[in-house]
Amino acid sequence: MPVTPELLDRLSAQLGPAGYSTDPDVIAPKLVEWRQRWRGHTPFLARPSSTAEVAAVVSACAAAGAAITPQGGNTGLVGGQIPAGEILLSLDRMTAVRAIDPNNDSLIVEAGATLASVHQIAAEAGRRFPLSLASQGSASIGGLLSTNAGGVHVMRFGMMRDLTLGLEVVLADGQVLNLLRTLRKNNTGYDLKQAFIGAEGTLGVITAAALKLFAPVISRHVVLVALASADDALTLLARTKQSFETLSAFEIMNARSIALAVANVANVKAPFDTAPAFTALLEFESLDGLGFADRLETFLDRQLQDRLITDAVIARSKAQEEAFWKLRESLSAGHRTGTPQANHDISCPVSMTPALLSAAHATAQELVPGATIVAFGHMGDGNTHLTVMAPQEMSQDAFPRDAISHSIHAVAVGMGGSISAEHGIGVARKADFAAFTDPLAIETMQRIKHALDPQSIMNPRAILPEGPA
Amino acid sequence: MPVTPELLDRLSAQLGPAGYSTDPDVIAPKLVEWRQRWRGHTPFLARPSSTAEVAAVVSACAAAGAAITPQGGNTGLVGGQIPAGEILLSLDRMTAVRAIDPNNDSLIVEAGATLASVHQIAAEAGRRFPLSLASQGSASIGGLLSTNAGGVHVMRFGMMRDLTLGLEVVLADGQVLNLLRTLRKNNTGYDLKQAFIGAEGTLGVITAAALKLFAPVISRHVVLVALASADDALTLLARTKQSFETLSAFEIMNARSIALAVANVANVKAPFDTAPAFTALLEFESLDGLGFADRLETFLDRQLQDRLITDAVIARSKAQEEAFWKLRESLSAGHRTGTPQANHDISCPVSMTPALLSAAHATAQELVPGATIVAFGHMGDGNTHLTVMAPQEMSQDAFPRDAISHSIHAVAVGMGGSISAEHGIGVARKADFAAFTDPLAIETMQRIKHALDPQSIMNPRAILPEGPA
Repeated sequence: MPVTPELLDRLSAQLGPAGYSTDPDVIAPKLVEWRQRWRGHTPFLARPSSTAEVAAVVSACAAAGAAITPQGGNTGLVGGQIPAGEILLSLDRMTAVRAIDPNNDSLIVEAGATLASVHQIAAEAGRRFPLSLASQGSASIGGLLSTNAGGVHVMRFGMMRDLTLGLEVVLADGQVLNLLRTLRKNNTGYDLKQAFIGAEGTLGVITAAALKLFAPVISRHVVLVALASADDALTLLARTKQSFETLSAFEIMNARSIALAVANVANVKAPFDTAPAFTALLEFESLDGLGFADRLETFLDRQLQDRLITDAVIARSKAQEEAFWKLRESLSAGHRTGTPQANHDISCPVSMTPALLSAAHATAQELVPGATIVAFGHMGDGNTHLTVMAPQEMSQDAFPRDAISHSIHAVAVGMGGSISAEHGIGVARKADFAAFTDPLAIETMQRIKHALDPQSIMNPRAILPEGPA
Repeated sequence: MPVTPELLDRLSAQLGPAGYSTDPDVIAPKLVEWRQRWRGHTPFLARPSSTAEVAAVVSACAAAGAAITPQGGNTGLVGGQIPAGEILLSLDRMTAVRAIDPNNDSLIVEAGATLASVHQIAAEAGRRFPLSLASQGSASIGGLLSTNAGGVHVMRFGMMRDLTLGLEVVLADGQVLNLLRTLRKNNTGYDLKQAFIGAEGTLGVITAAALKLFAPVISRHVVLVALASADDALTLLARTKQSFETLSAFEIMNARSIALAVANVANVKAPFDTAPAFTALLEFESLDGLGFADRLETFLDRQLQDRLITDAVIARSKAQEEAFWKLRESLSAGHRTGTPQANHDISCPVSMTPALLSAAHATAQELVPGATIVAFGHMGDGNTHLTVMAPQEMSQDAFPRDAISHSIHAVAVGMGGSISAEHGIGVARKADFAAFTDPLAIETMQRIKHALDPQSIMNPRAILPEGPA
């Protein structure tokens, strides 16, 4: 149903001058996805300052049958936060800390707070919130929850779902569902918060969350390891997990991904004189570093003697740690050149990553002879960010991006994997989501969608194909 | 709708002689809750041997509008597994291991497998499944998932929900929903498995699960600590969490709980000459014990010097470790004397446990002057098993059990807590669940129930009050 002038009048009156905008210049930055892949439009930007105001907006839209696109920090990678005519609901004014309880290791914060601010708040209380990802300065708690974000510490601390104790949600009819408990154990009926985490705003608007905190890290060690193959990386991962409960990240980067970062990003240097097929970044974080450096060196020496690894360098300073992480975090920028490419955020069982990389290479070659693979990611989680790059001479038009993505996704799914490990479906992955998901699962999702949002006004273009209600 | 002879004929034909029973002697053990608090009846015990057979049973019942009570190991504590005329669906013949992948730290097992067998299967593959609880020899994976079971290692490894990668579920119409992926990261639409975990069989029948495995423990240390107050226990917990990532259990036991176990359970001895107000059991598990014993002793010495703790004893042998755990695991039996009592499985924010214990004591005294409190549980999770015991002279009839429970639950809820931390609602806690749960949350649960089980044939008496559909 189209947005009517009457609805806009009602929303304006409810929100007051500070709470909305219809000025195209004010709205513009929220209409463009940050890599400029999606551009949207909206007649109205709502910027409520409280849960009651969010409820009033949703209630008015529900009464008018008008659709809403909720937006957090606008760092999403699948276009789910960009409106196409819907009311744009930004939570960016809702950033309050509602409660912090260090002895319960819990924090209640509103959905517009950025991840970086949550890190800061936790640190000031002598605690830590462990989720960490590149866009943390902008990404908001509401957006991170709605996409069940991951990042570099998932293997030890889990994704947003695992780090959440409670939620406050405005339902599709404007009622406020308060699930903001800070309990570690609570088995009283269905765990309703689970429905809203990862739902990309299609079932309601998350307005606040109770998050788990952890003890702060006292000792950190970051290591870069040179490996001759993905199989060796997998063996190293298994051995490391058997030896160290303090392993908090195990990232891999193929040679091509590092070469492009070194070539295209300022102040990034190759870590080894001879580029290995794969470089792994290992991070260990503990509450007590006693004797750890010795244990780590002994462990790495043994892997060198076994010829499982060909080289290793342990960061000896905070600056060197940061340089190692900067290499990892520059890979994404490194390959975003003008070269035609198809990007993927796939996962598979951890044990299948070497097979996935081989099969993806073969598939890419079949479709585009001379294509290269940029692959890096969170090997500890089986999550690979895999990009197929066109050969240098190929034009954008000649590059069969959709066919490649469909084939790469087929490879992942064929190995029991996923077409979207941590980015979500949004609008970008809808076609392949529909193609690769069991129709019964889609039908079950549609039943839940219809039960909680019968008018389909909550981010209706995201995730699900239109279906029988 | 009543179960008809036609339905029983159809089920018998589908399942074959080995797959069902109508013999009262065969069925009898499955009709009595293990503490004899609930006794049920059923015209038909279905014992399918495969997912296809479960699907056939559910499909036939759905067509006939007949209700089903699924049952795992019959160790549930809230009566949700005991039928009252429904078809009884036992998964006890479905115990197969479908796949194990040590390099993915994953195991796929059928729902009838016991927790103890899963421990064994994991150990044989050089891995570990960390969930641990007293009934593990009987409790089945399907039942543990349906009640989102907890146990003694939740503070480090989480509950069943946190340990599950995928599920296979037979839906209420008999269709098989295969969500059996073994991925650490998968954000492709709604995470449907979450709906069935903790749903106590009211939304479908879990037939198999993909579980997370972990590296095996190399070094274990178990300590008993004497404490003068619950506040001191809370401080000790906070300090221990700040110092040791290897802390895997932090249990507390009040003096009364230990005294009753010593008096009533064979071979249980008081750990300290003078009974402290609270005794804490701490367990540390790590992949490498290097230097750990020294660190632990130094830590405990510091707490003694600070007078935070009054005594401590570290188990020096496997036998002593087992004796410490036997004390903890005997508490439940210790107070199940003939004395009138009201039992509770409550939780609160970890920081509120001392206040909860004080308030519970005051509340009990108000209702029953001279009542005593037996309290023990998982302080690391804020989960207390709290029993109000009648004074010696009081009769069962005079003891106001329901009024006490309602008041104790009110105390927990008033502190942001839960009336059921790890046991679920079943039929035992339905009245207080309805009384203490936000009506909007109940309505939202009913919407989900109606979306997935529109005829309400799946364990219809558990959890939810009858509601508008």
